[in-house]
Amino acid sequence: MRSQTYNFCSGPATLPTAVLSKAQAELLDWQKMGVSIMEISHRSPEFTAVAKKAEQSLRQLMSIPDDYAVLFMQGGATQQFSGVPMNFFGLCEGKQAGYVDTGIWSRKALDEAGRYVDARLVASSKDSNYTRLPESWALDEKLAYVHYTPNETIGGVEFPHIPDVGDIPLIADMSSTILSRPIDVSKFALIYAGAQKNIGPAGLTLVIVRRDLLDATPHSALPPTMNYRLFDENDSMLNTPPTFGWYLAWLIFDWLIEAGGLTAMGEVNSRKSARLYNYLDASDVYHNPIHPEARSWMNVPFVLKDESRNAAFLKFAEEHGLLNLKGHRSVGGMRASLYNAMPEAGVDALIDVLTKFAES
Amino acid sequence: MRSQTYNFCSGPATLPTAVLSKAQAELLDWQKMGVSIMEISHRSPEFTAVAKKAEQSLRQLMSIPDDYAVLFMQGGATQQFSGVPMNFFGLCEGKQAGYVDTGIWSRKALDEAGRYVDARLVASSKDSNYTRLPESWALDEKLAYVHYTPNETIGGVEFPHIPDVGDIPLIADMSSTILSRPIDVSKFALIYAGAQKNIGPAGLTLVIVRRDLLDATPHSALPPTMNYRLFDENDSMLNTPPTFGWYLAWLIFDWLIEAGGLTAMGEVNSRKSARLYNYLDASDVYHNPIHPEARSWMNVPFVLKDESRNAAFLKFAEEHGLLNLKGHRSVGGMRASLYNAMPEAGVDALIDVLTKFAES
Repeated sequence: MRSQTYNFCSGPATLPTAVLSKAQAELLDWQKMGVSIMEISHRSPEFTAVAKKAEQSLRQLMSIPDDYAVLFMQGGATQQFSGVPMNFFGLCEGKQAGYVDTGIWSRKALDEAGRYVDARLVASSKDSNYTRLPESWALDEKLAYVHYTPNETIGGVEFPHIPDVGDIPLIADMSSTILSRPIDVSKFALIYAGAQKNIGPAGLTLVIVRRDLLDATPHSALPPTMNYRLFDENDSMLNTPPTFGWYLAWLIFDWLIEAGGLTAMGEVNSRKSARLYNYLDASDVYHNPIHPEARSWMNVPFVLKDESRNAAFLKFAEEHGLLNLKGHRSVGGMRASLYNAMPEAGVDALIDVLTKFAES
Repeated sequence: MRSQTYNFCSGPATLPTAVLSKAQAELLDWQKMGVSIMEISHRSPEFTAVAKKAEQSLRQLMSIPDDYAVLFMQGGATQQFSGVPMNFFGLCEGKQAGYVDTGIWSRKALDEAGRYVDARLVASSKDSNYTRLPESWALDEKLAYVHYTPNETIGGVEFPHIPDVGDIPLIADMSSTILSRPIDVSKFALIYAGAQKNIGPAGLTLVIVRRDLLDATPHSALPPTMNYRLFDENDSMLNTPPTFGWYLAWLIFDWLIEAGGLTAMGEVNSRKSARLYNYLDASDVYHNPIHPEARSWMNVPFVLKDESRNAAFLKFAEEHGLLNLKGHRSVGGMRASLYNAMPEAGVDALIDVLTKFAES
């Protein structure tokens, strides 16, 4: 059955079949130990070796500079909406935390930050109904950091390059764009990402942070399980981490390295999305509302010009093995998520089904 | 290989082979959907059905009254050390949070609570070097709640029954004792537990809380991802939950129901630990320091009277397929964890190896 489907879920998203097959083969007996990787202590030499290898593979893939800590945490990106301002509370004293608003997720991050620090909008594309990138940015020396969302998973809006904020520390929620192409980590103060798109299963959260920022005085009520410095000091094992997710992330990092790394993935992902956008733009039946300069490689929302046929389309797609194309409950329509584990053949199959349905 | 081992890890702990086999069989193609359970939206009808069934099975197993919420969270018990006082901040105004000290974990919970509320010790067994239960309890009407740790995973100390604290709300870190026997949930205000002992894989945390307590005013800095009320209102899907762990927990709950429920498990667990303690007590070679009334069914620490032979014993045990018997790094010696997934034959095998090593 699996070989007859393509899964366009926005997250928890499709994972590489090769990785799942390996995990399946060794699920009950890992490395001939007679136990599952899920059943050993996170402090055992066997698991700490996995943990280290995962970090090394990620550092290699993303060319993460040595002065950045890589943390494996829990709670999802949503927990980081609180974690960023709480950890950087001291940085924000007498200053402001700047947020760029490009849609639902960046807005949530702003609203949450305002509970802890003086948070303000520095740019917004709301005027365009979030179909473009923000035009004017209000940057000044009062900003302790600038937070933005490189890819809005729901809106399908993506920054094609890293915004220039000068010397202001730049923080990014990369949940749905991390590992999709090469990224210059040195341009960032902090990157965070929920795992359930390009990294692994839900329940693991990555934080990549420049170590000098760990000296910032945190909010007095910051829970230890959200404290970057404590996680760095304890190799992300302050308490029991989500070991199975960490192991799967390692397998995925190595799958990406074998596939040619992020340069190769970037080329594939660029091709995949371009092919779909080109088809949608040429169509009289379908429509993607996002301005070409802001279109996401990862999440392609689209609507039928005749919206009464949405349900019929989704049913037709499912009958052809194309799963989870329904748009987010807040916007409706359709959405095709094209993360790393979605092969080019999946996009071809989608275009084929779009064509057949248009003709029907 | 797996059939030739018994895994005594204290957590992440051994899981039922039947459950892992089922998860393995459907890892790439769940319910003939052509995708893994890990690869579907937590908001899909298919996953929300799993989520509901898991909760129903747990309610059935533990006879959880209807006025209790069951929450599936992240961050481990350690995050609840912060979460309890932060969520119950309003309850503690003008009052004190009481903590019972029976070892490392309960002490950590107390220390963390003191960061948010006026926390004080109400009982301690430190005088006995944590080999007994606390004798005198200082309870009064100033207490907003009493927190205790029914089972100390490292020390191997367990309360054989629920302490009587009158009308004071009772809170328990049940990480290593939940599901090991029938528990009268109605005696508790709140129960929390990291999954990685008797529930499932690391990365999932259970909270069972009496709903009227959700009206308490939380600490102003409580992150939403730790907020009990928000989790209750959102069916534990405030954000993406650890879906694979939740699914495995469901399989384990149903495995327990099939095995006869918690009455049956309690009988088996009582027998398992009694057999091991009886052997250790009769031995001249091994020793368990805990007073019989306080001995844990789940975690049995023991030492060789000749401690210089610890390493030799662990090697010998491993050669005989008995894994992860090393004691916690803070106390040394050995520890056999006998959670639900450890069959009685595993205890027999351990006693056999203890005997052989003693004779050697």
